[in-house]
Amino acid sequence: MSFEYSAKYIKQLSRAVEQQEDTYLINEFDGMHSADISSVMEGLNAEECKYILELLNPEVGANVISEIDEDTRKNFLELFTPQELAKYMDQTDSDDAADILNEFPVKSKEEVLASMNNHEKVQYIIDLLHYEEDCAGGLMAKELVKANINWNVKQCIDEVRRQGRDVDKLYTVYVVDDYNVLLGRISMKKLLMATDDIKVSDLYEPQIAKVYSYQDEEEVADIMQHYDLEVIPVINVQGRLIGRITIDDVVDVITEQAEKDQQAMSGLSEDVEETDSFWQMAKARLPWLIVGMSGGLLGANFLGGFEAELSRIPAMAFFIPLITATGGNVGIQSSTIVVQTLASGGFQGSVWNRYLRVFIVAILNGLTLASLVYGFNMVFSDNHELAIVVSVALFSVIMIASFMGTITPIILNKFGINPALASGPFITTCNDLIGLGVYFMVAKLMLH
Amino acid sequence: MSFEYSAKYIKQLSRAVEQQEDTYLINEFDGMHSADISSVMEGLNAEECKYILELLNPEVGANVISEIDEDTRKNFLELFTPQELAKYMDQTDSDDAADILNEFPVKSKEEVLASMNNHEKVQYIIDLLHYEEDCAGGLMAKELVKANINWNVKQCIDEVRRQGRDVDKLYTVYVVDDYNVLLGRISMKKLLMATDDIKVSDLYEPQIAKVYSYQDEEEVADIMQHYDLEVIPVINVQGRLIGRITIDDVVDVITEQAEKDQQAMSGLSEDVEETDSFWQMAKARLPWLIVGMSGGLLGANFLGGFEAELSRIPAMAFFIPLITATGGNVGIQSSTIVVQTLASGGFQGSVWNRYLRVFIVAILNGLTLASLVYGFNMVFSDNHELAIVVSVALFSVIMIASFMGTITPIILNKFGINPALASGPFITTCNDLIGLGVYFMVAKLMLH
Repeated sequence: MSFEYSAKYIKQLSRAVEQQEDTYLINEFDGMHSADISSVMEGLNAEECKYILELLNPEVGANVISEIDEDTRKNFLELFTPQELAKYMDQTDSDDAADILNEFPVKSKEEVLASMNNHEKVQYIIDLLHYEEDCAGGLMAKELVKANINWNVKQCIDEVRRQGRDVDKLYTVYVVDDYNVLLGRISMKKLLMATDDIKVSDLYEPQIAKVYSYQDEEEVADIMQHYDLEVIPVINVQGRLIGRITIDDVVDVITEQAEKDQQAMSGLSEDVEETDSFWQMAKARLPWLIVGMSGGLLGANFLGGFEAELSRIPAMAFFIPLITATGGNVGIQSSTIVVQTLASGGFQGSVWNRYLRVFIVAILNGLTLASLVYGFNMVFSDNHELAIVVSVALFSVIMIASFMGTITPIILNKFGINPALASGPFITTCNDLIGLGVYFMVAKLMLH
Repeated sequence: MSFEYSAKYIKQLSRAVEQQEDTYLINEFDGMHSADISSVMEGLNAEECKYILELLNPEVGANVISEIDEDTRKNFLELFTPQELAKYMDQTDSDDAADILNEFPVKSKEEVLASMNNHEKVQYIIDLLHYEEDCAGGLMAKELVKANINWNVKQCIDEVRRQGRDVDKLYTVYVVDDYNVLLGRISMKKLLMATDDIKVSDLYEPQIAKVYSYQDEEEVADIMQHYDLEVIPVINVQGRLIGRITIDDVVDVITEQAEKDQQAMSGLSEDVEETDSFWQMAKARLPWLIVGMSGGLLGANFLGGFEAELSRIPAMAFFIPLITATGGNVGIQSSTIVVQTLASGGFQGSVWNRYLRVFIVAILNGLTLASLVYGFNMVFSDNHELAIVVSVALFSVIMIASFMGTITPIILNKFGINPALASGPFITTCNDLIGLGVYFMVAKLMLH
């Protein structure tokens, strides 16, 4: 599913901006969801985006700014004065506002904050700017509705009416004590179904999932996914309620993590996008290409030691790609399964049991492939000895690559390195070298 | 983050079940979240799970059954009679109940349905069994709260009280006309903040996102992610409201899709888990290993045509792994970027522009790597001619592999095949062969 707009439509808008056809533009965007407006804007240039944004009402404009792609945003926000930007930030949810301001240098950040009218929001944003982007504190918004444990339902509903105006997505009312320590929650449904005089203390759910502000964003995602939550409260070390994280932000975390893992698996060392500069794109690819190349040169050096054998039996060289490719494929398959098991909450049962399973699967696949290759070589080649060497080497490579693919991600994970790296060029390079080693050792032992 | 429990704790529970220490077990699970109970159960055997489940109250038991891992569930639900299972299904949300019943053969499915007491739920489940698992209809639940457009807020709130008991997660009230055609929605917050006599027609939001029951689950995920929704209504072709999809189910879709893509990238042809049988695990790996092996054998055949050259200059063989590995790495890097761009909503801008970018990045990387390898060879080898051949071949392979990696996923995507396949053994195998071809062609042209 793509939320792209046709080039024709974008061109039409672009022309309307040029000719300042404001009524046409206002009509066009009236009632359009801010997420769709930001999709449209990704096709326009920075000046055109700004022109359109100024025609929208500031609340919609604020949403558009939050939802637009980060790269597009950066370009066109540069056209705004701090005062202009402040007008939108007054209307933006605190978590989005903090993310946006974090993209600016310190000086402009402070100028924007100084120009804002919504002083509660300014305080919220300043609080949020302290947190690292990838922890619960960096994901949370300050806007939430809370009720004191000593209130009744009527007081609680009045508070929803009062505080609720600022809160975009209201799922739940948090219950706190006089010191703002989080005690539990009341769902909107329960509140709607209760009579006015019921006490909050009789209605609230005391056992609820919560996260500390310092917890890692992936941990937050796991917890929300485990308990099927649409929102989770954030507390500080003293247990005080300081914010809430909504599921839409966590969905973004999950998607980004999946992309990062894919990139790690494919040997891209930085987050790259189609819109990056040439040199950025080239640079993201180079590190792992150089690792692979170094592996290849090491391999060349190793093969150099077998020059005599190779000139005597050049057919030995024919099977180098078969051996290295199979080693790489087997290694990546094994490591991917381990990486996914690690990601979905670790292993159940004993470690030795797992190694035994890997071992048996490797034997099954090794025997199957080695027999197929042996059969092929018996039909199409007349070097019976070499056929045996290739099959024995292939079998050994499959065994070793399975083992390597299994332990590498576990070891990386232990050292706090993203285990998905183990499904990438790293394991292929290792397995290429191991494969070559095994193949030529077997050949040296068996060919006379 | 893992929701695993220590082996010691699991053993303790296991012993308690054996010695029928019911009060200990009831205490242990009292107040524990059903998601946590199901995590505990993944460490126990089927009989133990059943024993514990029967100690829980049926509502909690029903949640545990919905949340437990599919493989564990399958084993222990086999121990239940249709009547026993029906007791839990009466309490399960219709979407989960339909998923669970779909795991059973037709006969037991009908026996369970016939034994259920909640006739509305039975009807819901029967409705849902019609839909394919991977479309909006297969994801939706029938439980929702709707209000007629002609009502006022008081009638609406009464309806929430009446219908709301069955609806676990209540975010919104859908507004329909007399024919059940979806017109819009009212958020719980708005309802709570409104006075009793306001008309629904004055309060509701008419423009809302919705999906048709036949839409693909990934499309549903994209739409909910695009509009940051926690719930989306499902309509049939006549526009009638037939269900709703909540974000927790969509988060599962997103996670599964990411796993499937990773598996496609690593050459696993079926969804495999650590708990599968040996033969299942081996079988999932074999198809792509055989493709890789066939590529390797084709390569061997191709190299066979250069036997004379290889015996004359055995050093040519040294660089085979370098060339094939670099081709593979470059191809996978390129295809991953394209796959991610396709997944995040397609390309902006012209196609030719993109090819130009790929071309320039490939030249940058090609020149860098080819120079590095040339430098290395000049220092460590005395075959000047071969050094040039290797660098020219490496450069050409990088150019071709970039191009292949860019167009393959686009082509696969056009034919409705998961483009992530293009980041896997498929592209590596192709690039191995292309790399060999280029290397030996260049050698043939340049070496005399």
